[in-house]
Amino acid sequence: MTDISTLGEFGLIKHLTKNIEIVNESTIKGIGDDAAVIDSKNKKTIITTDLLVESVHFDLAYTPLKHLGYKAVVVNLSDVYAMNAIPKQITVSIAISNRFTLEAVEELYEGINAACKKYNVDLVGGDTTSSVSGMVISITAIGEAELENIVYRNGAKVNDLICVSGDLGAAYAGLQLLEREKMVFKANPEIQPDITNYEYIVQRQLKPEARKDIIEILKSLDVIPTSMIDISDGLSSELLHICEQSNCGCAIYEDKLPIADDTKEFSKEILIDATTFALNGGEDYELLFTVKQTDFEKVVKNPYISIIGYITSPENSSVIIARDGTEIQIQAQGWNPLKK
Amino acid sequence: MTDISTLGEFGLIKHLTKNIEIVNESTIKGIGDDAAVIDSKNKKTIITTDLLVESVHFDLAYTPLKHLGYKAVVVNLSDVYAMNAIPKQITVSIAISNRFTLEAVEELYEGINAACKKYNVDLVGGDTTSSVSGMVISITAIGEAELENIVYRNGAKVNDLICVSGDLGAAYAGLQLLEREKMVFKANPEIQPDITNYEYIVQRQLKPEARKDIIEILKSLDVIPTSMIDISDGLSSELLHICEQSNCGCAIYEDKLPIADDTKEFSKEILIDATTFALNGGEDYELLFTVKQTDFEKVVKNPYISIIGYITSPENSSVIIARDGTEIQIQAQGWNPLKK
Repeated sequence: MTDISTLGEFGLIKHLTKNIEIVNESTIKGIGDDAAVIDSKNKKTIITTDLLVESVHFDLAYTPLKHLGYKAVVVNLSDVYAMNAIPKQITVSIAISNRFTLEAVEELYEGINAACKKYNVDLVGGDTTSSVSGMVISITAIGEAELENIVYRNGAKVNDLICVSGDLGAAYAGLQLLEREKMVFKANPEIQPDITNYEYIVQRQLKPEARKDIIEILKSLDVIPTSMIDISDGLSSELLHICEQSNCGCAIYEDKLPIADDTKEFSKEILIDATTFALNGGEDYELLFTVKQTDFEKVVKNPYISIIGYITSPENSSVIIARDGTEIQIQAQGWNPLKK
Repeated sequence: MTDISTLGEFGLIKHLTKNIEIVNESTIKGIGDDAAVIDSKNKKTIITTDLLVESVHFDLAYTPLKHLGYKAVVVNLSDVYAMNAIPKQITVSIAISNRFTLEAVEELYEGINAACKKYNVDLVGGDTTSSVSGMVISITAIGEAELENIVYRNGAKVNDLICVSGDLGAAYAGLQLLEREKMVFKANPEIQPDITNYEYIVQRQLKPEARKDIIEILKSLDVIPTSMIDISDGLSSELLHICEQSNCGCAIYEDKLPIADDTKEFSKEILIDATTFALNGGEDYELLFTVKQTDFEKVVKNPYISIIGYITSPENSSVIIARDGTEIQIQAQGWNPLKK
């Protein structure tokens, strides 16, 4: 194993970025100067950034570094897609303590590069430094969109249909499973983690994908959502963001929430209602969006999109209608990274 | 004092950003959505990012949080100016441990906002989260420039003049002074830090400025540098970056290095050659650039610019010519954040 300090900052950057290829025409200058240069031409530039801190956002006990790098990129791209925009570049800054070897950082970058390749994104800059303890990853994603296609959180109107992509709660179920297996392993290191039958939820936690395909589908269906957000903190929390910013209420149906069979099965096993996972579990990185009623026919047939409810007027609160017909107020119980 | 966890992530963001005003026409959408939207029109977009880690990049024992916020912004803007571009937006991500109160974070943001105001930059996004220990600040700056005005590190040509703005070594001298006073204070907490007569070098360390004025001066003089970089890791290190990327050598003169009287005085006091501070001290955030010989008349009269040497052909190494005429090879002894 190679000690990173032997390379120094510039040596490390050179080593990690030597094979980087630029694929986007809009990338005029990538890594290697004081800053990167981007040409969005007549499009608007979209910018979003995320900070991931070890022991807060990820646990290296069960997160392979390659997956971590991949996920760190994906969560940022997801924010760009949530604007109905296309990500084109990222910058990656990392701080690492001296417990990480060069090989460990290479693995992290393998994941970062794999995500760049998959989503056609150029790595154009960043910063590499040390930390006193633990790892910190800060990624900024840059995208582009025509002004008239950009979708904000504040455009939902009464009677708009509320849609979500994919399925909900699986990433949080996967986290619960991994945490459980970590406890078992801690108690008895001879017992190997048992994730048989639960590959799907583990995958959703460790290697989420951003819904580039949904943006493409919406485009091909000629649907511009009236509002959109990505689900990073749980459906409840994101729905309330849309309702607050669009000044409206909402009603969603419990029986319309898309939940994968594996999520349901695991929820039964640990005696937690799967709806709780779907409403409050974070990190699904699915898209939550609203469309006009007139777009109903266009979206209803798509297997990757579920219509889960509709937007109501601001006098109404935001509710979920349970299977038995009772109305329950939606509360944000999403993850609070500042909670002690 | 207010515990941050009582506000939660979104409450904290709202609280910290409630007074933010957008001043740039190019900022279409700031804080409050999945991403910010920027319209660079026919200009190119410049992106740079920096990660600052407590106990690696800053010591809160002698760094007021307001100064830290200010400096964190300035170091990023400096990178944008070093492209001969104008910064327009920043995103700010912070991770804080629970030892920081709301008031502490407010102070940090006061500094961030002061820098934004001074440099006409909009705060358009970011991320706020917790850390297990210590503070991490990640800032991304976004700027704009006409393609033909952008200056890279790789354009220096033989016989070009090497110029620096302001004076060198003061920020590092200030750091040495602050570290010394911290030691004195640790040994005997009743002795108050003595920085009398050294306000200048302390100021240069704690509250550096980015050389926006130099970019404006160069524009008014109708001078486009052939290469440029900002001095964050020390003159030697930055000169070598330019020489490596421009495939050239250089010769600079020891007696031409601009060094402030306070820096010289302090260097005498601690028996270190002031030239060492100027060559290897970091964090001056001055601009190092090369101009064509034909621009000599334009820059020589400017009081904020010093001509310190010239570019040589690639067969020559990079040297400094000492006061006694001896040639010494320049070596990068700039700060290595990955050194143990």
